[in-house]
Amino acid sequence: MFEQLGLIGCGLMGGSFALACKRAGLVQRVVGYSKSPSTTERARQMGVIDVEAPSALLAVAGADLVLLAVPVAATGATLKAIRHLVTPQTLVMDVGSTKQDVVLAAQDALRERFGSFVPAHPIAGREVAGVEHADAALYRGAQVILTPTERTLTTQLQRATNLWRALGCRVSSMSPEAHDRGLAAVSHLPHLLAFAMMGAINTQDDADRLLAMAGPGFRDFTRIAAADPVLWRDVLLANREQVLEQSQHFAAALEQLQHAMRAGDTQLLQDLITLASTSRARWRLGDAALPTDH
Amino acid sequence: MFEQLGLIGCGLMGGSFALACKRAGLVQRVVGYSKSPSTTERARQMGVIDVEAPSALLAVAGADLVLLAVPVAATGATLKAIRHLVTPQTLVMDVGSTKQDVVLAAQDALRERFGSFVPAHPIAGREVAGVEHADAALYRGAQVILTPTERTLTTQLQRATNLWRALGCRVSSMSPEAHDRGLAAVSHLPHLLAFAMMGAINTQDDADRLLAMAGPGFRDFTRIAAADPVLWRDVLLANREQVLEQSQHFAAALEQLQHAMRAGDTQLLQDLITLASTSRARWRLGDAALPTDH
Repeated sequence: MFEQLGLIGCGLMGGSFALACKRAGLVQRVVGYSKSPSTTERARQMGVIDVEAPSALLAVAGADLVLLAVPVAATGATLKAIRHLVTPQTLVMDVGSTKQDVVLAAQDALRERFGSFVPAHPIAGREVAGVEHADAALYRGAQVILTPTERTLTTQLQRATNLWRALGCRVSSMSPEAHDRGLAAVSHLPHLLAFAMMGAINTQDDADRLLAMAGPGFRDFTRIAAADPVLWRDVLLANREQVLEQSQHFAAALEQLQHAMRAGDTQLLQDLITLASTSRARWRLGDAALPTDH
Repeated sequence: MFEQLGLIGCGLMGGSFALACKRAGLVQRVVGYSKSPSTTERARQMGVIDVEAPSALLAVAGADLVLLAVPVAATGATLKAIRHLVTPQTLVMDVGSTKQDVVLAAQDALRERFGSFVPAHPIAGREVAGVEHADAALYRGAQVILTPTERTLTTQLQRATNLWRALGCRVSSMSPEAHDRGLAAVSHLPHLLAFAMMGAINTQDDADRLLAMAGPGFRDFTRIAAADPVLWRDVLLANREQVLEQSQHFAAALEQLQHAMRAGDTQLLQDLITLASTSRARWRLGDAALPTDH
């Protein structure tokens, strides 16, 4: 389907994408670049990429498919560095967890070539980073949200959709704003709360003893707190308005529960927990389909 | 090791205990009672119990081992109903998630027979309830916290320790107060936060759309929100002082993170997330041992 994937950022997300594309026979050759030369070398040794490029621009030379798998804050600078080699025939995508900032940065960096860029967010990940954890199956079954604008080329949007589908993903599309609001609610806020949960334990003198008492519920609840600090710093700052707004909804729901506890209002407490429990028990990952607008 | 287990409450926790004891060859016979006759019947049909008893008292008749697996709020009434058959040779345990209230209720109900009661909390569970989910492996590898008092009979405490160890559990002991404070931090508060997270989504008009965007991080973070509402209503009320105190620590940690976001303080935000992420990445379920005081 594609001749050459130019991969910028050979970490967990980028490396897994390259492996998945290769395994599915979707790309013939992968040329990779990472900011750290040792990562690029490691990626080649592992067979994640075929050729090491010494710069982002050289990774893109000859590529008909470009994937940016860099921290969202680096999107603008990276796209500026490669823009001369982006043509209407190139499909350029990112994998960032926020989309409004990425779209703005891409418009500014790519200007008249912006139509080749299809903003993409595959909702998948691990609490571990680095190419050594790259996994051809990381995206299988995952949801991928594309956030095209009216300037996005229809042909590239269609190619992007087909590509992710061929990797076994469920593809949907929505506006960057709708994406960022939704992800604030179901991903960014949960991360913030998990960081706060670990912070709350760490500030107590007997933190080690408390952690020794923790069981499987705690393990799952805090799993996302082990996520990459720089990546999440950037996500929380890039989407801070939406995250802070969602955190108001959370504070109100928490206050209701605490009020029921303080008041000893058994029935209210049970009703609130029942609503939460029922909706969570009904929800299954991947059950509900989001619309594809194209 | 034991002749007869008198099982009061044949749900997930009780049923799994009976199955595990049978599989390990630790009890010869299980006589079971549940408030709902259909549950007791189901438990017998499934081979979880051998004999159905029509009352808690009759389940205990002839038993040298008694397990209460009922909601913590029902502990006192249940123990009162069986007290006539509790002797210094009987080992009586519960599996409740709170211990100060259980110990008080047991003292009141059992009076001079209180020494036979060894308060136990196996830190294991599922988001599903009912005997149909009973699993002989539920407790394997789990931590069991015993909270004996000075009136607890040494022989029964030792038998309790040996029994849980024979089921493959890590056994520790501490005061009921230390248990309740620790569990408030690492279990009860996380449940409260997970309930609030689901509540926050449910109050929004497009809750279904938001949930459709959720990925594996959300799935794990909210898994415990599907827990049994009545059980958790009771836990949160029984341990409310400690839970509300832990929730102050949480609020302070969350406010610090939100302050860094609002102020755009990149370094502070990164530092806070790094502390959380590092401590979570270092923690492994079952790595740290808690002391056994006996």
